[in-house]
Amino acid sequence: MGVDGEDQSQLEQGNHTKDAGRLHRDRRHPTSLSELSPCHQCGVRVTHFQRLFVTLVGADWIFLMILGFIMAVISFVMDLFVILFTDAHRWIYDLSDSHVFLQYFAWVAYSLLLMCFAAGFASIVSPQAAGSGIPEMKTALRGVVLPEYLTFRTLVSKVISLICVLGSELPVGKEGPFVHIGSMCAILLCKFMSLFSGIYKNKARNMEMLTVGCAVGIGCCFASPIGGVLFSMEITSRYFVAPNYWRGFLSATFGSLIFRLLPVWHGEEETLTALYATKYRLDFPFDLQELPAFAAMGIVCGFGGAFFVYLYGKITLFVKKQKAMNSFLMKNVFLYSALVSVLISTLTFPPGFGQFMAGKLTQRESLLSFFDNRTWSNHCIVADFDSDDYLAAWKHPQANVFIILTIFVLMKFWMSALSITLPIPCGSFVPIFVIGAGFGRLVGEGMATLFPEGINTEGHIYHIVPGAYAVVGAAALTAGVTHTLSTGVIMMELTGQISYTLPILISVILANMVSQSLQPSIYDTVIRIKKLPYLPLLRWGHREKCNIRVEDFMERDVRYVTLNSTYRDINRILRSGNLKMLPVVKSAESMLLLGSVERAQLLALLKQRAQDRRGGLVPSMPCSYRVHFQTSTEESPSTSAHPDSSKPLKPVLKKSAVEEEEITNPYDSGISLKKLCCSRPDIDALQDYPDTDDDTILQEIEEWEEPLLDEQVNFNNCKIDPAPFQLVEGTLLHKTHTMFSVLNLDYAYVTGIGRLIGVVSLKELRKAIEGFLPADGVRLRPVLASFRDRGVRGARIETAELHKLLDHQAS
Amino acid sequence: MGVDGEDQSQLEQGNHTKDAGRLHRDRRHPTSLSELSPCHQCGVRVTHFQRLFVTLVGADWIFLMILGFIMAVISFVMDLFVILFTDAHRWIYDLSDSHVFLQYFAWVAYSLLLMCFAAGFASIVSPQAAGSGIPEMKTALRGVVLPEYLTFRTLVSKVISLICVLGSELPVGKEGPFVHIGSMCAILLCKFMSLFSGIYKNKARNMEMLTVGCAVGIGCCFASPIGGVLFSMEITSRYFVAPNYWRGFLSATFGSLIFRLLPVWHGEEETLTALYATKYRLDFPFDLQELPAFAAMGIVCGFGGAFFVYLYGKITLFVKKQKAMNSFLMKNVFLYSALVSVLISTLTFPPGFGQFMAGKLTQRESLLSFFDNRTWSNHCIVADFDSDDYLAAWKHPQANVFIILTIFVLMKFWMSALSITLPIPCGSFVPIFVIGAGFGRLVGEGMATLFPEGINTEGHIYHIVPGAYAVVGAAALTAGVTHTLSTGVIMMELTGQISYTLPILISVILANMVSQSLQPSIYDTVIRIKKLPYLPLLRWGHREKCNIRVEDFMERDVRYVTLNSTYRDINRILRSGNLKMLPVVKSAESMLLLGSVERAQLLALLKQRAQDRRGGLVPSMPCSYRVHFQTSTEESPSTSAHPDSSKPLKPVLKKSAVEEEEITNPYDSGISLKKLCCSRPDIDALQDYPDTDDDTILQEIEEWEEPLLDEQVNFNNCKIDPAPFQLVEGTLLHKTHTMFSVLNLDYAYVTGIGRLIGVVSLKELRKAIEGFLPADGVRLRPVLASFRDRGVRGARIETAELHKLLDHQAS
Repeated sequence: MGVDGEDQSQLEQGNHTKDAGRLHRDRRHPTSLSELSPCHQCGVRVTHFQRLFVTLVGADWIFLMILGFIMAVISFVMDLFVILFTDAHRWIYDLSDSHVFLQYFAWVAYSLLLMCFAAGFASIVSPQAAGSGIPEMKTALRGVVLPEYLTFRTLVSKVISLICVLGSELPVGKEGPFVHIGSMCAILLCKFMSLFSGIYKNKARNMEMLTVGCAVGIGCCFASPIGGVLFSMEITSRYFVAPNYWRGFLSATFGSLIFRLLPVWHGEEETLTALYATKYRLDFPFDLQELPAFAAMGIVCGFGGAFFVYLYGKITLFVKKQKAMNSFLMKNVFLYSALVSVLISTLTFPPGFGQFMAGKLTQRESLLSFFDNRTWSNHCIVADFDSDDYLAAWKHPQANVFIILTIFVLMKFWMSALSITLPIPCGSFVPIFVIGAGFGRLVGEGMATLFPEGINTEGHIYHIVPGAYAVVGAAALTAGVTHTLSTGVIMMELTGQISYTLPILISVILANMVSQSLQPSIYDTVIRIKKLPYLPLLRWGHREKCNIRVEDFMERDVRYVTLNSTYRDINRILRSGNLKMLPVVKSAESMLLLGSVERAQLLALLKQRAQDRRGGLVPSMPCSYRVHFQTSTEESPSTSAHPDSSKPLKPVLKKSAVEEEEITNPYDSGISLKKLCCSRPDIDALQDYPDTDDDTILQEIEEWEEPLLDEQVNFNNCKIDPAPFQLVEGTLLHKTHTMFSVLNLDYAYVTGIGRLIGVVSLKELRKAIEGFLPADGVRLRPVLASFRDRGVRGARIETAELHKLLDHQAS
Repeated sequence: MGVDGEDQSQLEQGNHTKDAGRLHRDRRHPTSLSELSPCHQCGVRVTHFQRLFVTLVGADWIFLMILGFIMAVISFVMDLFVILFTDAHRWIYDLSDSHVFLQYFAWVAYSLLLMCFAAGFASIVSPQAAGSGIPEMKTALRGVVLPEYLTFRTLVSKVISLICVLGSELPVGKEGPFVHIGSMCAILLCKFMSLFSGIYKNKARNMEMLTVGCAVGIGCCFASPIGGVLFSMEITSRYFVAPNYWRGFLSATFGSLIFRLLPVWHGEEETLTALYATKYRLDFPFDLQELPAFAAMGIVCGFGGAFFVYLYGKITLFVKKQKAMNSFLMKNVFLYSALVSVLISTLTFPPGFGQFMAGKLTQRESLLSFFDNRTWSNHCIVADFDSDDYLAAWKHPQANVFIILTIFVLMKFWMSALSITLPIPCGSFVPIFVIGAGFGRLVGEGMATLFPEGINTEGHIYHIVPGAYAVVGAAALTAGVTHTLSTGVIMMELTGQISYTLPILISVILANMVSQSLQPSIYDTVIRIKKLPYLPLLRWGHREKCNIRVEDFMERDVRYVTLNSTYRDINRILRSGNLKMLPVVKSAESMLLLGSVERAQLLALLKQRAQDRRGGLVPSMPCSYRVHFQTSTEESPSTSAHPDSSKPLKPVLKKSAVEEEEITNPYDSGISLKKLCCSRPDIDALQDYPDTDDDTILQEIEEWEEPLLDEQVNFNNCKIDPAPFQLVEGTLLHKTHTMFSVLNLDYAYVTGIGRLIGVVSLKELRKAIEGFLPADGVRLRPVLASFRDRGVRGARIETAELHKLLDHQAS
């Protein structure tokens, strides 16, 4: 490529400026390497090699490829086990065909057993393994630490229970749990790698890897790297960070590669293809006149998606209510899971009702048959039906294909909504996918019956492809439930065909427009039901909140520490709440905000004083608490032009432990908004501080004699964050919301001219946006509610404005 | 779907809480609509219908669809014209085949004429039309207002010159200019729509629409909505904002749909297919053993991409130097364009050197032939060669396919790098695409020759598909030049096949890894060469900058306004610089930051005083400058727990004009980081304030008598932004960089305990990150420089640390 020839040549200008820079540097630092002793040079070289090793271990791409590899292997092995379990299910079922009751027993008991094992294993080993995991990851990526959610124990629990659940053929999926598994693998791999390289201790980096874990989880689940990255970005964060984008791509691509390579090496497949490879015609994928049908499907899927979310919420709330009423039924996690399992496997029992809904097929087999290239309603291919095992399930002597497909869609709809409420690892993505594909197939078969010779275009006969409708339907319904656009991309990668881009995108966009105006997404619903912290979107409907300022909704009752606080004050503050960080002000009169200090630091101060008192000697503080003192930062080369006015009081305390941590992270390209903008050093490390211990300390201190209690606390050994996030008084709600969203803040202090006047946390912001919050944190919107809202909005605003006017005159 | 049945039923809990909320509201506002007079009710109804109309006109999706439609039509019509021009070129060329010199003259003169017209038209109508437009859009989306870049004049100039340039068959593309055209259309459409609906006056919304315009531009250029959205996000912003994501998708999808529908309606095509639809086999797309070849191509393309950027930079700098030396040559824009045009068309003259590089083919024809399904080096299809017009160009009696392809790639490489330096509208994407495809075809043909029977896999014979190599090569080289991953997605949508996802992604990722470590992207290079404001990335190499704090690089010499400033002070401050915003502090002694004020506001104050002095009467201020006064915000319902301490001084001045503006924007969902976080109201509107006028005012004021000059300025009528963006002293460089990146800041004030101590602008931040900036703002890195850097980095850091130690001991 002629690159090497250019290696030696440098641009003249570039050279000049570089030399100038070097000169400048040399002038400031007159010594150079050659003047050092040979011993030191040797040491430098050893460090150099050490650094090379650390560089290699710590290189992003190596980590990302290992992560991709691990996830691909987990996904592949899980698929193998699931196929093994379902094959065994069929084998037992076929074996016991002598008597239908025996067969029924075998069919139901097998599922029941696996389900009970899964529910039991999950609840015993780690209850955090239950559910999808996507809502929790969404919360975790907001910076909220969910205890026990990312441990090895949970990983094991999730993987093993998931295999059993999928093996029991409950209509749930693995995509959601795989997001969780991907994140756990990423975090655990970070922990493992930190044994070799210090940069893995950087929490900002780990947070980034969490996002990558989400992407690689989805990518390895469907062998769809692009869709996986986009989907993980859409569901986990409102603001995408570009560096994560390429990291996610690298890891997900490598993961997908390995995930598709493994079947080839295993001898199952010949080469790398899509997971559900389709072979629709390329020359004339669809007729223009089919576009309205695709668009209509998108709209119907939008309503369907919103209704699914509504149904799920209703079932969950019903179960919660029952829980309160009937404690016996709900005390036992097995019982609920067992009941649902028996109900569903009874209905899908192939010789029973299952014959009307292809109960014999697994989810994968159903999908394969939906994406099939042939037209089922076409009578010419009846011969095909008999020879093909999957298609045979859709044939029934008494009912035609349409009836079976309709029953399938309706039954699976509520079954899936019910199944994902169980306390087991389960995702909603794949079942929705299957239902959408079934619905699409139904529409497609209908179109094929309506236009048996295809829609006529100038003499050519192009038959309708019902499989394509299944593809579009699957993408649209999933989009309606998850509120994402990337399901379209996942669909394309999954089927290995992109000729249907426009129909897919059109229906996905329409489904999103409809369902977003009706309901929150399934993940947001879970977040609300589980009462996880979240930040609602400022939607179109919130325009009347434009003129709210931060001081209108901030918490004014702030507990703070002053520089002249006594031990009694600190004790009182610590006992009155359990905030992780407390603001430090200069004095209660001035309220000038100096920074913030961790609760744990204050506790340490109290403990140290207690020890001093008991032992009478000054114990040495742990090294990490030692800080340098800097009362001036005069090393800055620039000179001040206003020496008299522009040099106000410097904050007297400066942390340097954090600074040192930063320096020892050689590849700190990782810009975690959370980390950088909130500067909460080591908050996780201190979290598992035993609370009982604190209480005893606090009680003990109360028993001190008066003079000691009134002694001023010495903050010299305290790590104070000099730059906690501050909002200026008068900041609008919109701006505050943007700051919290973009920077993933948990809280921010509100200052007016440097004085602390309040604090805003997620809670206050959420209240300000939502107006009010129900007691249980859940407010399910009935379907079509927003249409009703919209109709009266005009009048309502008029009224509000009138009220405002009247209030103004009255006052 | 059973949705309507659920419509009436509401969740009990939801109802309860809603009622509670309503009750609460009613208690506060005892009047209701029914108590109003019928006349008022009527008025309310009229307003209601007005609002409905505004809602319809102002609905996002209508705007987005109109934008997509316009762009699709522009793209389609442009393509029609370009085909017309190139057909005419061929026609003239064929007509004059009696004599080779006449033919040569016809070939060259035609291109020359179009080029000169394009260059002349662009330079006369609007010189801003020159170039790609992507770098400028990148800068504009950072919030920097580039004058005249988004006007109707520039749009006309860009469209017409682009048609001529593409018609003259210069190796340039339309993708870059289409980003610019899309943005212009978006802004102009906003302006047009603002005649009907006020919400289009919202600048935040317009900024969002700018992003959408970029996406739709690319989407309509290649009929690739997904790739378009991703590409526009990758090149325009480091931080993706989710709402723009779906807006871009909607607009780009509709645009692509129309763009592909138009040829169908025009009778050119039968149905919607991909632009360069390929029909490679679906069952066995590629052999596993071909993956290393794809990976190697990715790496080579990474080097090639970096070298292209280097070459482009070198040519531009050379031309700049020549400009300074030979003013005659460069004075005339025509001359340079004409020279390049003659040079290139001479070389591509088909009977001349052009026969060795398929000079006869247009870019589209070259691409079509590269993506061809047949293997050229296979001797069986020679018959095909003769019958196919495109393929015949690659056949030469004296030279085989490999030589012609190599010459094509090498010649086009420098020709493209040269062409995009011309002062005409031109994009680098498509030519790079063609070169990459040519390189891929070369590799593919080589592979096909090496393995004529395909790579053997258990008996089956699957021939190598050289067309697939062309697809991968095109994606990889473009990725190397633009530093994006979405070129892979664009490639898939362009060819209508997704079976090569993994090879494409692998090569794209490798190309990115190589080229990103060698050179900035072509767009960043243009930004640096044009000296547009930019913010460099904090890369891995910047780890030694982790401990730099904001006070180390901020500008301490801040010009500020105090509340007791005199007219003399204001005059002095305004004359000493031309900052758009000035900080307002309480007094020079306290330096407490109260807010910031626009330069234009201060000028208005001075003018008003001057008028008062001249006329002796108090002129009425324009309505928009009137503000309410609020010295207390006691209307907040929450009560303070620390009445004595937590209620510090409120800022005495509060803007409400901005507030009103916010309220009149009914659909202010548009959260522009820029707008919300910088709060610079109406800065654009005041930009075209005549500067000469200001100077005369300022001079006039200097001539005032002493007592008037020493009079204190009354800021009561001044719009003061109470919450300009502030950074707290001690903020680390990393955090500052993140803030600036995420919130798209231009500047931020640095405060220590509420006191203004400095200001940081993009310039200071850039300096701090880059260490130093060459005089001309350009620093081209020679290829492979970073590898050399990396080798010595370890030692260099040791040295730096030693220096630091020695400095410390000395001081």
